[in-house]
Amino acid sequence: MRLGELAARVGGRVRGDPDRVIEGVATLDAAGPSQLAFLTNARYRRSAERSRAGAILVGPGTELPGRDLLEAPQPYLALALALEQFHPEARPPSGVSPDARLGDGVRLGQGVSIAAFAVLGARVLLGDGVVVGAGTVLGDDVEVGSQTVLAPRVVLYPGTRVGARCRIHAGAVLGADGFGFATTAEGHHKIPQVGRVVVEDDVEIGANTTIDRGALDDTVIGRGTKLDDLVMVAHGVRLGPHGLMAAQSGIAGSTRVGARATFAGQAGAAGHLTLGDGVVVAAKSAVFADLGEKAFVAGIPADDHRRWKREQAALKRLPELLQRVRALEARLTEGEES
Amino acid sequence: MRLGELAARVGGRVRGDPDRVIEGVATLDAAGPSQLAFLTNARYRRSAERSRAGAILVGPGTELPGRDLLEAPQPYLALALALEQFHPEARPPSGVSPDARLGDGVRLGQGVSIAAFAVLGARVLLGDGVVVGAGTVLGDDVEVGSQTVLAPRVVLYPGTRVGARCRIHAGAVLGADGFGFATTAEGHHKIPQVGRVVVEDDVEIGANTTIDRGALDDTVIGRGTKLDDLVMVAHGVRLGPHGLMAAQSGIAGSTRVGARATFAGQAGAAGHLTLGDGVVVAAKSAVFADLGEKAFVAGIPADDHRRWKREQAALKRLPELLQRVRALEARLTEGEES
Amino acid sequence: MRLGELAARVGGRVRGDPDRVIEGVATLDAAGPSQLAFLTNARYRRSAERSRAGAILVGPGTELPGRDLLEAPQPYLALALALEQFHPEARPPSGVSPDARLGDGVRLGQGVSIAAFAVLGARVLLGDGVVVGAGTVLGDDVEVGSQTVLAPRVVLYPGTRVGARCRIHAGAVLGADGFGFATTAEGHHKIPQVGRVVVEDDVEIGANTTIDRGALDDTVIGRGTKLDDLVMVAHGVRLGPHGLMAAQSGIAGSTRVGARATFAGQAGAAGHLTLGDGVVVAAKSAVFADLGEKAFVAGIPADDHRRWKREQAALKRLPELLQRVRALEARLTEGEES
Repeated sequence: MRLGELAARVGGRVRGDPDRVIEGVATLDAAGPSQLAFLTNARYRRSAERSRAGAILVGPGTELPGRDLLEAPQPYLALALALEQFHPEARPPSGVSPDARLGDGVRLGQGVSIAAFAVLGARVLLGDGVVVGAGTVLGDDVEVGSQTVLAPRVVLYPGTRVGARCRIHAGAVLGADGFGFATTAEGHHKIPQVGRVVVEDDVEIGANTTIDRGALDDTVIGRGTKLDDLVMVAHGVRLGPHGLMAAQSGIAGSTRVGARATFAGQAGAAGHLTLGDGVVVAAKSAVFADLGEKAFVAGIPADDHRRWKREQAALKRLPELLQRVRALEARLTEGEES
Repeated sequence: MRLGELAARVGGRVRGDPDRVIEGVATLDAAGPSQLAFLTNARYRRSAERSRAGAILVGPGTELPGRDLLEAPQPYLALALALEQFHPEARPPSGVSPDARLGDGVRLGQGVSIAAFAVLGARVLLGDGVVVGAGTVLGDDVEVGSQTVLAPRVVLYPGTRVGARCRIHAGAVLGADGFGFATTAEGHHKIPQVGRVVVEDDVEIGANTTIDRGALDDTVIGRGTKLDDLVMVAHGVRLGPHGLMAAQSGIAGSTRVGARATFAGQAGAAGHLTLGDGVVVAAKSAVFADLGEKAFVAGIPADDHRRWKREQAALKRLPELLQRVRALEARLTEGEES
Repeated sequence: MRLGELAARVGGRVRGDPDRVIEGVATLDAAGPSQLAFLTNARYRRSAERSRAGAILVGPGTELPGRDLLEAPQPYLALALALEQFHPEARPPSGVSPDARLGDGVRLGQGVSIAAFAVLGARVLLGDGVVVGAGTVLGDDVEVGSQTVLAPRVVLYPGTRVGARCRIHAGAVLGADGFGFATTAEGHHKIPQVGRVVVEDDVEIGANTTIDRGALDDTVIGRGTKLDDLVMVAHGVRLGPHGLMAAQSGIAGSTRVGARATFAGQAGAAGHLTLGDGVVVAAKSAVFADLGEKAFVAGIPADDHRRWKREQAALKRLPELLQRVRALEARLTEGEES
């Protein structure tokens, strides 16, 4: 494909030779003369200058003298679109494996693909084009929307609902019982967990992530939200649309999170909280209190991100401060005694 | 069911109309006139006042004028019992799927249910009423006590023992090798892990949780202990009875934990420690030293919870303190010079 | 086996009776007169003195008067070798289960073992002696080197490469999509993840651990590296040889880690970093900046380990320091006023 055509398809423009032939996408270090590389992080500028790439995808205003550039207003989006050109998604052929087992009353849309050793419980409902990977288990009354892809070895407990165009990776478990017990002198008495997990459209869920069913209400993952691997969403949590939860982050029971929230890696939030739209929780931080809209917090307990940074900087000076205060005390005592 | 009958079954008493018909349980926000809601957390009092619920379950002494109340001495327990009335547990019918594979010498109790694509190794022993979910794999010589439910896609490595009335959720792995290596100049030489995992009665284990087999001794999960999802219990750990480990918490090798310990979410403990009965480790905290009975700790490293709170409060004032000390130094110098 | 023979096999020497018969290995507390116990951690010295063990494995210079000792220069290695004597690894018999499903063009080495309900995609290549556990799923074009053992319920996504003599535990997922999205006003647009996961020789990967495929470049786990359970390695990470990552630790995208690095439990590193050979990240710590060779860091953000310790010690004195500064201010004001 010529660079000019690629630029048109990804919503960018060429600065340089539009007739250059591009056959793929690679990193700055790995790309050769027929590949497109990309520079979106200033940290890698030197690699861009050294790169053997045939062309480089950049954001507006980036200068790289002597290089053929593909400039796009949203370079990450253009990268995604360029990769889609060269790596169209491979879906398995439609059809139900003779080694899959389907319960009574299962209903399948057009073009569904069900792999070997998948198990569908009674009354499972799959929309058009749904892909069910090998060994995936769908409990009774599960519903999955059209074009959703379930990787191998996913488990959806009974009653779980997944929207359209979702992608659930291997090992993810949706709908296991929430962690709810009535503790008495005799021990912990299980509280039946009778809510469901409801995943809206366009959600992606990472490998080995767990989302528990609600105790009474449903646990809800809002439209367009993306969860990374090994994430935990506890019973009754409601995540707003277009959120991001990076790997190993978790949210405790009944917490409600607004739209476009971001949890960085290994972050957490306690239960029964309300977090506003657009909150950002820094990596390794833990939220123990409600947060207003667009709060950007860090630390344990999480506090305003800038304040946290100042405190951490001050903490580094604390051992020295102890000595300074001791010196002050000595000087003052000396002064008083003299 | 009439409210009076329900109250009798859950060990409570009616304050209001005992003849009101109750057909289910719901949250304060969702409940309608034929449903029981519950108020156990003062944070939700306003929701209780607004609720359309037919009756509200409360603890002793809670007043909600004009409402029919079901008062119970242990309201969470009463909630659990009420939910059991309306949602009796659905167990699959007994029988062994023709698509399951059983090794030589397997012995099955009465009323066992084994789903499709389950694999039982040689000499596996299942007690009466055990449920084995689809795709679950039990290694050679595994023993599972009566009435225990293994969800789909559980793995019990060879030799693992699980007690009676346990519940193990999807994706949990018990008995994988502990993380033990002899490090030499050439690299890390694996130390064979020849202990087992032993899970006592009435234990619940969450989705995708991992419990490693002991290096030499067994890893033991005490009677009645409940583990949430994505929890890690390392080789040789001994957890006492009636403990709680919330999601994404973990305990490193050979640590011994007393009875009724609580690990909140994302908490951890280092290896080779002894933690007393009733310890509580706050969310996101990390225990690096032995703890006495009933210690309630927080922080990294974890320290007494109140002290940690004081330190965190003081930390917020540290940037200002630095300025105050600078001012003191200036005043003192000025005073000395004058 | 006589103690003298055992000593010869594990590279040690006897201090005491070489003719004592040893039939197994056990902990100090559990060992009887025909078992070898070991003392490698001074914390357990009292247990060694009380132990009924027939002989005790120790490092050079350890004295235990009146006991038969097996002294080895590297006692952990000797322990590993002794355990191998008494617990030789049991591999399943070779052969392909009639209940496994193999895609077109699969090639199998000599002595391969494939268990029931395993699924191998097209063109999968298994070296000699590879073991594939029950329910394990290998995508198209996966390659696995000789003598590698895949436990039950492992998933290797298409194109994943695993070296020789590796061990991958149950529930591990290699090659799921990295967490890469182009965020626009409309939401998060998926960036196709077209790199692979490449695992070099002699690697061990714990239960339910996840390693994502690279966005463009491969994610690489270096030779001899060992990952514990529930570990996360994000897209494009390159881990050097002979590293260790303990349970629930994680590394974000594109970070490069040198040889012999250690991540303790629940530790993490941010993305796009470069960490030198031999770095050690303490438990529960988070690395947010590049690290030089052999850096030993702790804290959030992680800093030099000794400095972190001093700061934490100082933090414990901070509430008292606040009072001392208040007192100083009062004294100074009083002094100035008088």
